[in-house]
Amino acid sequence: MTASPSRLLVRNAVLDGSAADLLVENGVFSNIAPRLPVPEGAQVLDAHGKIAIPGFYNGHTHSAMTLFRSYADDMELFTWLSEHIWPNEAKLREEDVLAGARLAAVEMIRSGTVFFNDMYWFGRAGLQMAEESGLRAMISKFVIEDRPGHVRDDCVRQNGDLASAYAACGAKDRVRLTIGPHAVYTVSESLLRAVAEEARASGEWIHVHASETRKEVEDCVAAHGLSPIAWLDRCGLLGPRTLLAHCVHLSPEDIALIRERGAVAEHNPCSNYKLCSGAFAFRDVYEKGKCRMSIGTDGCSSNNNLSMFDEMKLAALSAKLQSGDPACAPATAIFDIATRGGAEAFGIHGGVIGKGYAGDLVLLDPDAAFLAPGNNLAADLVYAADTSCVDTVVVAGRVLMEGREIRVFDEGRVLADARAAAKRLFRA
Amino acid sequence: MTASPSRLLVRNAVLDGSAADLLVENGVFSNIAPRLPVPEGAQVLDAHGKIAIPGFYNGHTHSAMTLFRSYADDMELFTWLSEHIWPNEAKLREEDVLAGARLAAVEMIRSGTVFFNDMYWFGRAGLQMAEESGLRAMISKFVIEDRPGHVRDDCVRQNGDLASAYAACGAKDRVRLTIGPHAVYTVSESLLRAVAEEARASGEWIHVHASETRKEVEDCVAAHGLSPIAWLDRCGLLGPRTLLAHCVHLSPEDIALIRERGAVAEHNPCSNYKLCSGAFAFRDVYEKGKCRMSIGTDGCSSNNNLSMFDEMKLAALSAKLQSGDPACAPATAIFDIATRGGAEAFGIHGGVIGKGYAGDLVLLDPDAAFLAPGNNLAADLVYAADTSCVDTVVVAGRVLMEGREIRVFDEGRVLADARAAAKRLFRA
Repeated sequence: MTASPSRLLVRNAVLDGSAADLLVENGVFSNIAPRLPVPEGAQVLDAHGKIAIPGFYNGHTHSAMTLFRSYADDMELFTWLSEHIWPNEAKLREEDVLAGARLAAVEMIRSGTVFFNDMYWFGRAGLQMAEESGLRAMISKFVIEDRPGHVRDDCVRQNGDLASAYAACGAKDRVRLTIGPHAVYTVSESLLRAVAEEARASGEWIHVHASETRKEVEDCVAAHGLSPIAWLDRCGLLGPRTLLAHCVHLSPEDIALIRERGAVAEHNPCSNYKLCSGAFAFRDVYEKGKCRMSIGTDGCSSNNNLSMFDEMKLAALSAKLQSGDPACAPATAIFDIATRGGAEAFGIHGGVIGKGYAGDLVLLDPDAAFLAPGNNLAADLVYAADTSCVDTVVVAGRVLMEGREIRVFDEGRVLADARAAAKRLFRA
Repeated sequence: MTASPSRLLVRNAVLDGSAADLLVENGVFSNIAPRLPVPEGAQVLDAHGKIAIPGFYNGHTHSAMTLFRSYADDMELFTWLSEHIWPNEAKLREEDVLAGARLAAVEMIRSGTVFFNDMYWFGRAGLQMAEESGLRAMISKFVIEDRPGHVRDDCVRQNGDLASAYAACGAKDRVRLTIGPHAVYTVSESLLRAVAEEARASGEWIHVHASETRKEVEDCVAAHGLSPIAWLDRCGLLGPRTLLAHCVHLSPEDIALIRERGAVAEHNPCSNYKLCSGAFAFRDVYEKGKCRMSIGTDGCSSNNNLSMFDEMKLAALSAKLQSGDPACAPATAIFDIATRGGAEAFGIHGGVIGKGYAGDLVLLDPDAAFLAPGNNLAADLVYAADTSCVDTVVVAGRVLMEGREIRVFDEGRVLADARAAAKRLFRA
């Protein structure tokens, strides 16, 4: 494993069509110019004419669910959850979650992702993966109830483990904790209010599923007389540090409330389509509604990958078909949300290759057929590219992958461990 | 360039989870067993434990439109066509089309595609690419009018060139000609009837756009009192050798007619979404309607790539959301349509790795993160994989790519020529 150097000079990259050297110092871009001298003690990475872009921000995932990839598909939501996902999640051990999370890290790095917002069991394993991988991350203290007003004992225990591990974490500059109440139908009012209180006191982000399905909205209205968005607001959870995953079924009032509170509407199109949750109203939420937005993959059991390329393409295509306007969700807007917008949503001055921004970048293979003949890079990235185009990934000046070789993990070992964990879970 | 050997032995592949040697003789699988002796004079390809799957059939494309990739996006259909596509297509020379087609070949091979059904200007260039690339193909004699009853002069001239070249073609076993009337709104009744007559006489397939947009249907009903499908049938074009590209707006009567005539409904989901044409009714056409089906990418100006992975994923996801049933369009069905079904649609005994079938296969990287932990291969392929998983491609016993190295083209030269052609077209 390579530590983050205090200085990394990326030479001979192509930025916005022109040759560029990029200097990262103390994790931040300190200089960008056609040609820079090599500073003393700097690590030099020769980009050999590769195309530099900011990395992707995956705004909502359950990383260790890579173990469940293609385990149970093509079935009705409740059958899927109750017969396949929950019984197997009950068998998970922390080492399984770590194995799945490391597989996710490999996949995210290979996809050009530099940040992920995670919510899952055994948060300590997610934290360990984040520390090892070099990725930026937010890791949830996961909150779900077994009876009203009572956080599940394993959540309490696991979150205690996570908090202790985080106290000793050496990567607090790029990894932070969030509070992750699962959803309005699994967390009661008293606990939601306690979460809001804790977040206010700690300054931590809140990460919650909201308005994913029609049934969730109907049940919330029946129980509280309010939509999930309005109910979360009533309980004190809506603010500029709140991530609302899915946001498929929003009323005009919900959209106005999200905008007024400055919360983030998180878009997860592949999962929403695969589970038939519905289609996110991009035009209403973003173009007209002016809400802050982020894009994410959700977990690998409902997608079934962590590629932000797939997510960007469907976000754009779905917005066009649903709005009936091919000019809706142009590539530049989608790429911006997946990079700069995602960073902004999580309070990170990143997602842009520019002086003073987080020193993260992805180098693309300039000879990838998907990027030829090179008419428009943003459109190539949103509509044509896939992970085969990604060559090198840098986060905070640390090289996580170079020339398609992962530098932070023994990839063969990660794959073997994930296969062993899945075998024990599903075929033991 | 390597010629097709009379015998290719693929050793140490993994087929349906078990070790397998696969022998291709005279372009066809002649033996498959856990271990086979090396026949005299056979070329041996060591698969090193890679996963063997049949290759993909791209049922509808305009291959040379790779030149237009990301040239004009995010705009209304008529503006796109009239201001950006048509004026530039008028500037195309045959060498431009060849450059674009070769870029398409590289992209298709890298995507695990073994067959494409092409419709474009300068068919001779498409034919040349098909001969060079080793891909299976159908190449259209493109028919579009400049005034009622009169095929455009350049179509006539170009189709003459194509027919002459085909007469001398040495690859007639894998490349065939079709007749490609563009659509009911660009080809008049007398010509449609002439096309039907020509196809009956020659036995050639018919390749036509049909029911792509609502406007096309409304205009056809206004002009002829019939839907495009019924109108094509009235003109004698609907039969078991007819490919109906798009099929977005079908009535129950259209679906019944397609089934009765044994025609093929061609599904192009990415293009249909991007241009806001509409959503193909998978449940009605295939699951209930029992129509024959194929999946295709359309051209790179409305997709913007030729990856059948993207196409399969959206075909499945769109079918689920539109039907409201996550069990609709299961991965096994989508993968079957993209392989065996596509082959069947074009009269090819292929798309299956089995004795007597066309000797085509794709080897996947078994260490691809997207295929781990390996719970279900069909679901991994439809929902998770992308072109980064494709390692080796064989068509009719000829190795087109091995270890991600294209064997049939100088890839650097192909990219340079495509960039030069695009520059001349768009930036001269």
